[in-house]
Amino acid sequence: MAQPDSPTHLVLSLSCPDRPGIVHAVTGALARRGGNITESKQFGDADTGLFFMRVQVLTTVPRQEMEKDLAELARDYSMEWSLDEVGRPMRTLILVSKEGHCLTDLLFRARSQGLPIDVAGVVGNHEDLRPVADFYDVPFHHIPVTQDTKGAAEEQLLSLVESLGVELVVLARYMQILSPALCERLRGGVINIHHSFLPSFKGARPYAQAHERGVKLIGATAHYVTADLDEGPIIEQDVTRAAHEDSVSVLRSKGQDVERRVLAQAVQWHTEHRVLLNGHRTVVFA
Amino acid sequence: MAQPDSPTHLVLSLSCPDRPGIVHAVTGALARRGGNITESKQFGDADTGLFFMRVQVLTTVPRQEMEKDLAELARDYSMEWSLDEVGRPMRTLILVSKEGHCLTDLLFRARSQGLPIDVAGVVGNHEDLRPVADFYDVPFHHIPVTQDTKGAAEEQLLSLVESLGVELVVLARYMQILSPALCERLRGGVINIHHSFLPSFKGARPYAQAHERGVKLIGATAHYVTADLDEGPIIEQDVTRAAHEDSVSVLRSKGQDVERRVLAQAVQWHTEHRVLLNGHRTVVFA
Amino acid sequence: MAQPDSPTHLVLSLSCPDRPGIVHAVTGALARRGGNITESKQFGDADTGLFFMRVQVLTTVPRQEMEKDLAELARDYSMEWSLDEVGRPMRTLILVSKEGHCLTDLLFRARSQGLPIDVAGVVGNHEDLRPVADFYDVPFHHIPVTQDTKGAAEEQLLSLVESLGVELVVLARYMQILSPALCERLRGGVINIHHSFLPSFKGARPYAQAHERGVKLIGATAHYVTADLDEGPIIEQDVTRAAHEDSVSVLRSKGQDVERRVLAQAVQWHTEHRVLLNGHRTVVFA
Amino acid sequence: MAQPDSPTHLVLSLSCPDRPGIVHAVTGALARRGGNITESKQFGDADTGLFFMRVQVLTTVPRQEMEKDLAELARDYSMEWSLDEVGRPMRTLILVSKEGHCLTDLLFRARSQGLPIDVAGVVGNHEDLRPVADFYDVPFHHIPVTQDTKGAAEEQLLSLVESLGVELVVLARYMQILSPALCERLRGGVINIHHSFLPSFKGARPYAQAHERGVKLIGATAHYVTADLDEGPIIEQDVTRAAHEDSVSVLRSKGQDVERRVLAQAVQWHTEHRVLLNGHRTVVFA
Repeated sequence: MAQPDSPTHLVLSLSCPDRPGIVHAVTGALARRGGNITESKQFGDADTGLFFMRVQVLTTVPRQEMEKDLAELARDYSMEWSLDEVGRPMRTLILVSKEGHCLTDLLFRARSQGLPIDVAGVVGNHEDLRPVADFYDVPFHHIPVTQDTKGAAEEQLLSLVESLGVELVVLARYMQILSPALCERLRGGVINIHHSFLPSFKGARPYAQAHERGVKLIGATAHYVTADLDEGPIIEQDVTRAAHEDSVSVLRSKGQDVERRVLAQAVQWHTEHRVLLNGHRTVVFA
Repeated sequence: MAQPDSPTHLVLSLSCPDRPGIVHAVTGALARRGGNITESKQFGDADTGLFFMRVQVLTTVPRQEMEKDLAELARDYSMEWSLDEVGRPMRTLILVSKEGHCLTDLLFRARSQGLPIDVAGVVGNHEDLRPVADFYDVPFHHIPVTQDTKGAAEEQLLSLVESLGVELVVLARYMQILSPALCERLRGGVINIHHSFLPSFKGARPYAQAHERGVKLIGATAHYVTADLDEGPIIEQDVTRAAHEDSVSVLRSKGQDVERRVLAQAVQWHTEHRVLLNGHRTVVFA
Repeated sequence: MAQPDSPTHLVLSLSCPDRPGIVHAVTGALARRGGNITESKQFGDADTGLFFMRVQVLTTVPRQEMEKDLAELARDYSMEWSLDEVGRPMRTLILVSKEGHCLTDLLFRARSQGLPIDVAGVVGNHEDLRPVADFYDVPFHHIPVTQDTKGAAEEQLLSLVESLGVELVVLARYMQILSPALCERLRGGVINIHHSFLPSFKGARPYAQAHERGVKLIGATAHYVTADLDEGPIIEQDVTRAAHEDSVSVLRSKGQDVERRVLAQAVQWHTEHRVLLNGHRTVVFA
Repeated sequence: MAQPDSPTHLVLSLSCPDRPGIVHAVTGALARRGGNITESKQFGDADTGLFFMRVQVLTTVPRQEMEKDLAELARDYSMEWSLDEVGRPMRTLILVSKEGHCLTDLLFRARSQGLPIDVAGVVGNHEDLRPVADFYDVPFHHIPVTQDTKGAAEEQLLSLVESLGVELVVLARYMQILSPALCERLRGGVINIHHSFLPSFKGARPYAQAHERGVKLIGATAHYVTADLDEGPIIEQDVTRAAHEDSVSVLRSKGQDVERRVLAQAVQWHTEHRVLLNGHRTVVFA
């Protein structure tokens, strides 16, 4: 997209075994191409021995050339890394069921508030949210899921992911559990919103559980999906006050506000390459 | 304390089986004595069938006379109730171990910020915090607890509660588990601060658990103590942000801020008769 | 809507000069009709000498009969009061310009999250948001406003308010200043969302002002509209963190989240009759 | 302090005119000495053309040698910079008047919660808080201030700053305005806590102003002191909820909680070299 002479704004994020000289080596590769750093964060985790880095750089060199330089470096340092253009919308598939608050929110933010996702499609196991997708001119795919058809449904899903060039799958209150195989296949590329402040109230009906326990705050948790249900690496969490007058349905309604906010935040950080995996935890360069 | 002609500011709080006319009857009793309501809240819980009320009233009638009127009413409506003077400091015993952040905070608030507690004593199973008690001119009692002496220690504790006219016991990071018998004996009169956002991370070392799980918020929970560990009715909870850089010890330090704030808030609401038991949950007329 | 024998859930809110016996008199009127209080709050303001009360009551008596009883009482006590059915959607007109985050949010909440507004129409001084109104099947009225046409535009607006039976007007980022005459005419019935934490950053471009000052939190304020710009009684405020990296446009985007949340909260409280005027301040029985 | 072979943990923070290669040059200087980066953040401000960097590095080289390398670099890049040992307590003088919540909090955190300040003394224009200083074994200096003695008092203050090797002055609710000359003399080294969410409610009696305006949140602001009253660069702000029942004195008490939290946070960030001046704003590498 960038013209030869206009600067490109790139974002590099990486993790690798920690050792002296990493930042110097990386910024050297950037500096040799005239790159100017606009924002950067680094962190070395003494527990895991891993080093994490995210850097935004203005450069006149095209992304592809920068990529070549970095590939060599990455080999030397055993890096996991990605290089992207700042602000490039990420191809995203949103999975939903019947509740529309998260879907509506993500699509509105993508259209009007600069959330960098390019929504390739919406998949619903019910038809309810088709009109929302239609309104935002996003193709809606109805893939019903029953116990018998789960395997076929997941194949259909996977084929969509591939044919649409999907980079990120968002479970926006999808209410279905992905099979371990699919979790593994899409590892690190699926974000779920759980409607409780994990690890409290795992599993079903968290608002009813919260009401029963009499907690004074309810929350929501956005996390990467793994085969281990509700145990994936947490990206973001937030809470809101619950009062003694609040029935389960009021809690649910209050909670939906937190859910959509937390999910949108997690998706934004992910698409901006601010979230790096550190074992079963995350580093978030917010 | 009130002069015959100067108005008394009373606070009445009550709960009873719900039925029509309760507020009318109660406010009638108050009105007949010329009482003027300054603040009041009521709540009927459709789930439990209980009605809750807290009312502050300015009156020229002494508390004792008002008490007589209300006692009759209370019988008719099967009320659990209390009548107190607004702002009267509650006789309080604070139990501590080695960490002083909650104790320091409670004593400072009592002296300088209007927290209505009259601290009758501080009990420590270690000597560490004696100087803090000394500074605030509060008697310090060293009651060590070992597996063998636990029974005797609790008897000593109970005898202090009785001899000092203690109305409220606060476990300000006491680190000891009270026996079921003592919990039962002091039921509704013991507030504990747990250093996690319950029901997450029950039991020992919650900050280590939180670090291990990679949560993005850590919290604290003030609750009434029951024989069922970490399961008592919750009075107040709050959270603060945790970052990926935060070691367990940083989490602990951040968490201590939340602990003391949450505990102080719970103690204040309790002493202002704003917290009413609703089964294993609480109604908080904040 | 209520069947003869099924109970009606009513909400009464009132304010009047304070004096002993108000709650007793009001609850007496309710009790005589077999009313059962489900939730109530009262507050006497020593500064202004006013008393405020909100009470929800279950009764088998129709609203009209209850109204007659209360009208008499209201005269005796010089009350300003309203009696409504709990949950009855309020006829609402939403005024917008080009930014759709508040409109989208209000319409979504009305449809899917129980916000009790019945949106009678959307008025835009631009055409931009017509599709949003269309999607939610709400009539859109394009009333352009220029310096010359302002008078005529306001007449058109007022005529819509009357013909549609509008009870509440919401300025959802309308960007136009209502004339003092119109403010007076609709007094207490117009809610505006201002995109700053008032009284900071009144007037135009508050996010640019906030950026320039280097504040660490940005906020939004929902208030009743008066002829005194940005000085109307505040209903609700909230804030979110601003970081040094945040450009004005990032602040604006972060702020929009707060704006829509604060506005929705204010509208909900207003429609639930939880907001009472106390001079140029508000009592909010949240 | 560091033994020849044990690693030193250093923190370097700097700002300079932005240009390509800064991070590479700095990390090169660190890498040549075998330094291993544990945490780092950078930011280039397109508005001001300044670049900011904070880096923590583990090295076996003593601070003095590292300092020499960096001094040369700093000249080349026109850097303002500082190099310190991570966690080294900063020599701090705390100025107070009669309210003790901030002083108590800072001294407690310094003793028990790892706040890296070494409190060289407490200065009070009244005697009230001498016992608090005594309790924490900190010298208390009574320097009364009247209109006539202000000049002499400031000289006394300055002489204390010099004789005690003070690096940071904290106005912990000092209630006195420093003269422009003293502000200039201690520029960047004086932190004040203002008891409002600036720029709202500048000047005197902010809680009374907040009550009068009917705001729903009250706040506090920690900022560097400049000759321009209440206009210095903001380091941190926070808020808490205000309710309609809250009298000015309740607001003050609630606000004190925010004040001490915000001040402690600002002091911590400052002593950890996380706050860099960017014109009249701050960059905070939290």
